[in-house]
Amino acid sequence: MDNLLKEKLEYVHSVLKEARIYGHACNVLSFDMETICPPDGMEEQGEVNAYLENQVFKLLKQDKFIEEAEYLYEHRDELGDFDRACMEVLHRDYAKTKNITPEQNLEFSRIFNKAFVDWTNARKNSDFSLFADSLTKVRDANIKMVELRDKDPETADLTVYDHLIADYERGISSEMLDECFDKCKKRLVPLLKKIQASDKKIRTDFMHREVPIEQQRQMAEYLLEVVKFDMNRGVFSTSEHPFTHWVSKGDTRITTHYYTNDFAASMYSIIHESGHALFEMLQPRENYDHFITDGKTLGMHESVSRMYENRIGRSRSFVSLIYPKTCEIFKEAMEGVTEEEFYEALNVVQPSLIRTESDEFTYTFHIIIRYEIEKEIIGGTLAIEDIPRRWKEKYEEYLGVSPENDREGVMQDVHWSSGFGYFPTYSMGNMYNAMYYNRMKNEIDIDKAILAGDFDTINNWMKDNVFAKADRLSPSEWIKDITGRDFTADDFLDYLEEKYTKIYNL
Amino acid sequence: MDNLLKEKLEYVHSVLKEARIYGHACNVLSFDMETICPPDGMEEQGEVNAYLENQVFKLLKQDKFIEEAEYLYEHRDELGDFDRACMEVLHRDYAKTKNITPEQNLEFSRIFNKAFVDWTNARKNSDFSLFADSLTKVRDANIKMVELRDKDPETADLTVYDHLIADYERGISSEMLDECFDKCKKRLVPLLKKIQASDKKIRTDFMHREVPIEQQRQMAEYLLEVVKFDMNRGVFSTSEHPFTHWVSKGDTRITTHYYTNDFAASMYSIIHESGHALFEMLQPRENYDHFITDGKTLGMHESVSRMYENRIGRSRSFVSLIYPKTCEIFKEAMEGVTEEEFYEALNVVQPSLIRTESDEFTYTFHIIIRYEIEKEIIGGTLAIEDIPRRWKEKYEEYLGVSPENDREGVMQDVHWSSGFGYFPTYSMGNMYNAMYYNRMKNEIDIDKAILAGDFDTINNWMKDNVFAKADRLSPSEWIKDITGRDFTADDFLDYLEEKYTKIYNL
Repeated sequence: MDNLLKEKLEYVHSVLKEARIYGHACNVLSFDMETICPPDGMEEQGEVNAYLENQVFKLLKQDKFIEEAEYLYEHRDELGDFDRACMEVLHRDYAKTKNITPEQNLEFSRIFNKAFVDWTNARKNSDFSLFADSLTKVRDANIKMVELRDKDPETADLTVYDHLIADYERGISSEMLDECFDKCKKRLVPLLKKIQASDKKIRTDFMHREVPIEQQRQMAEYLLEVVKFDMNRGVFSTSEHPFTHWVSKGDTRITTHYYTNDFAASMYSIIHESGHALFEMLQPRENYDHFITDGKTLGMHESVSRMYENRIGRSRSFVSLIYPKTCEIFKEAMEGVTEEEFYEALNVVQPSLIRTESDEFTYTFHIIIRYEIEKEIIGGTLAIEDIPRRWKEKYEEYLGVSPENDREGVMQDVHWSSGFGYFPTYSMGNMYNAMYYNRMKNEIDIDKAILAGDFDTINNWMKDNVFAKADRLSPSEWIKDITGRDFTADDFLDYLEEKYTKIYNL
Repeated sequence: MDNLLKEKLEYVHSVLKEARIYGHACNVLSFDMETICPPDGMEEQGEVNAYLENQVFKLLKQDKFIEEAEYLYEHRDELGDFDRACMEVLHRDYAKTKNITPEQNLEFSRIFNKAFVDWTNARKNSDFSLFADSLTKVRDANIKMVELRDKDPETADLTVYDHLIADYERGISSEMLDECFDKCKKRLVPLLKKIQASDKKIRTDFMHREVPIEQQRQMAEYLLEVVKFDMNRGVFSTSEHPFTHWVSKGDTRITTHYYTNDFAASMYSIIHESGHALFEMLQPRENYDHFITDGKTLGMHESVSRMYENRIGRSRSFVSLIYPKTCEIFKEAMEGVTEEEFYEALNVVQPSLIRTESDEFTYTFHIIIRYEIEKEIIGGTLAIEDIPRRWKEKYEEYLGVSPENDREGVMQDVHWSSGFGYFPTYSMGNMYNAMYYNRMKNEIDIDKAILAGDFDTINNWMKDNVFAKADRLSPSEWIKDITGRDFTADDFLDYLEEKYTKIYNL
């Protein structure tokens, strides 16, 4: 690299370093708001967060910064892999933000922050109408943000919704999702009918026995130890909706939510969020030095979290591994429950209302419903106030269940308060991990490792194959790099078919 | 007020508003570091905190801001009470910071942030030597900061240590403290000897019975309800060392620490910190609008927290009030314990090593020891590495006990990591509250209110008399405003003498 490039790179890094300071503060502030900030402190803290986010925006909007970053982007082939990835991200972000003024940006931030506060309140009161006004503003802000964007020939013809999807999952369009979800419906709807018609009786009574929070907390600690979550570099806390929050290279946080009548909910949210956390904790150190820790798409992230939660966490061997300790900690609740019964109960197919508590099989329907509703909202064919009605219709159509109130309906998830386009990534995640699980199993004996509690072997494989280049590749490049194959939903659908055919003796 | 003043005031407020945003973020970041931030995230978060603190520093160092604020200070008699108080604070702060560059200030912040991290680590390892280097830097930074200050004729002759004390408690000098503590020693040393020679047997066996943390958490919730801590405007959490953190007008936080073999420790730290929190929560709304929420001195603050903790919390009537619920929540631990035994156990005099767990009577000795050691450190007659030895000597001399390690010695309190001069304020607090308690008791029947659980009456009296002007007056003006009398230690010493003479049948 010549001296001129080096100099420019140093300057760009110095600005990114300052931006990271503000980003760090924002990460802590928002973690705080979701875990401990008292009701009357929320609005002011939201304002503080918006202000600091806007400082980042201003730093990256400086003429000199843009000039240097764009210069480096044009010379990206002379840079190393990590620096090139960084300049590509900056270039893409620049196209998104170049026509947005700091005032507009602050206004957008305020809308999202206010929406979070309103969502919290509306959910508590199980009343969508308290959120409708903010959600309208979020939708309009999303549309406005896309309109303001610089389009290149590649993206000029995309719909607004396609832009939003691609913000979370580069290279994915609603055309691809339509095709993928159609395939899912074609194979999963008949399978669901067969499952529902099956004679197989799965015992679930014990799953709703009362379990004190203190026992569940102990279980959470045990599970974190099992998957080798590093407590020096992370913590866990509680929040309304479980999530993972990356704060800094030595600090990745996860949360869970305890329900006294559903001990498995917190167990599996802990495993899910641990997957996200491991992805952050085990990324290459070079990512920090080159400011590309944000390169992972949400689909990639969900692939990892859902692999730990489902492929591993709900596997027969994982249940075998944790069964003794589960019986010890949940002594009363697990009384008289065999290992096989526990495994089956954790995999029972039961159409339900809450996405995060749904089984692995019906989960995809929750995503399809969100996806179809999102598309209508952004496409302008569904008014905000009609969402709860549409929600009901869709749940009845696909799953045969109907929410009694907004809390178990549209208010269940926080995501829309920060915009649209996120939900499909959850399903992409399932499909990615089905693909790379098949590769992993050719290289290591996964079940043997699980049974032995040897998560180092699994985590190291993930680190070397799945985590290593995630921040530098697009999703399609990445999955091809890991598996040698193009993206497909087939592995995932094959997996579901095989697993549930066996459980339900179909 | 004329238009020119109004205009300048508006400008000054706009800068203070921006500074408050950064201050809010710093408050959350440091709360986070004391409650949940994982070990490997601490150092980076300390750096972020220092950077943001420095942004405040820079905002208040702008030429225009200083010019306008100084102009307003010169015209302070034309301003309202709240604005005048604000300009007085700014003027005093300006004298302290005018010769400090942002680079120096950032360096100081880093020293304090690093010292906090080192303290945490040294305490965990019970090894003062891990903290010594940072503490040396803290001492030198303190001295340097005072040297760099602009002195006026009033403060020109003060010693460095006097400056540091006055930073926390305006108008107080080491000469006054020497006199005050001499008086304490003169009356308390012989009284302590009498107590130790007394035949009175106080039962304390049950105080160290094992109590699960979950029960203690329940008790904390009950106590917060009793003293009318507003959970919409505050939260409580846990940390190594209990503290109160003001974040914003709708957000005041307290922490406690649970010890399974000492249930009273968390009970009384909860009451103590609630006192601090009530002081913040019940201050005049005008304080926020005029940016003078920081006007309370630490002595004032400690007077309130220690009034709730001791004068109220350890009174016979308070014990009567909480006894039934205590027996209910701590069923096993309180088995066979009478109300009178509980009261006596909460007031037993027992020379011990840990300040925060010490009894109300010997507490003053802990402060005197810290004070005397501080004075030697800043005066240059005690080397940092000799502190543990000196600590041992003093504890043996005054209390007849000796720490076995640094954790129960010099490492017990966090305060020195942010500088010297704080500790004497704890004792000032006891003396202030003894004075205003005597006034309150002339106006309301305190014991009757406590017995009835009527904390509104007490809190309202405090609000109207103690809290209302605290941010606008110096400690000496304030105590005179409340009580009509000049500061004296006599009320406090009289109170101790009366209470303990009765308990120990002297």
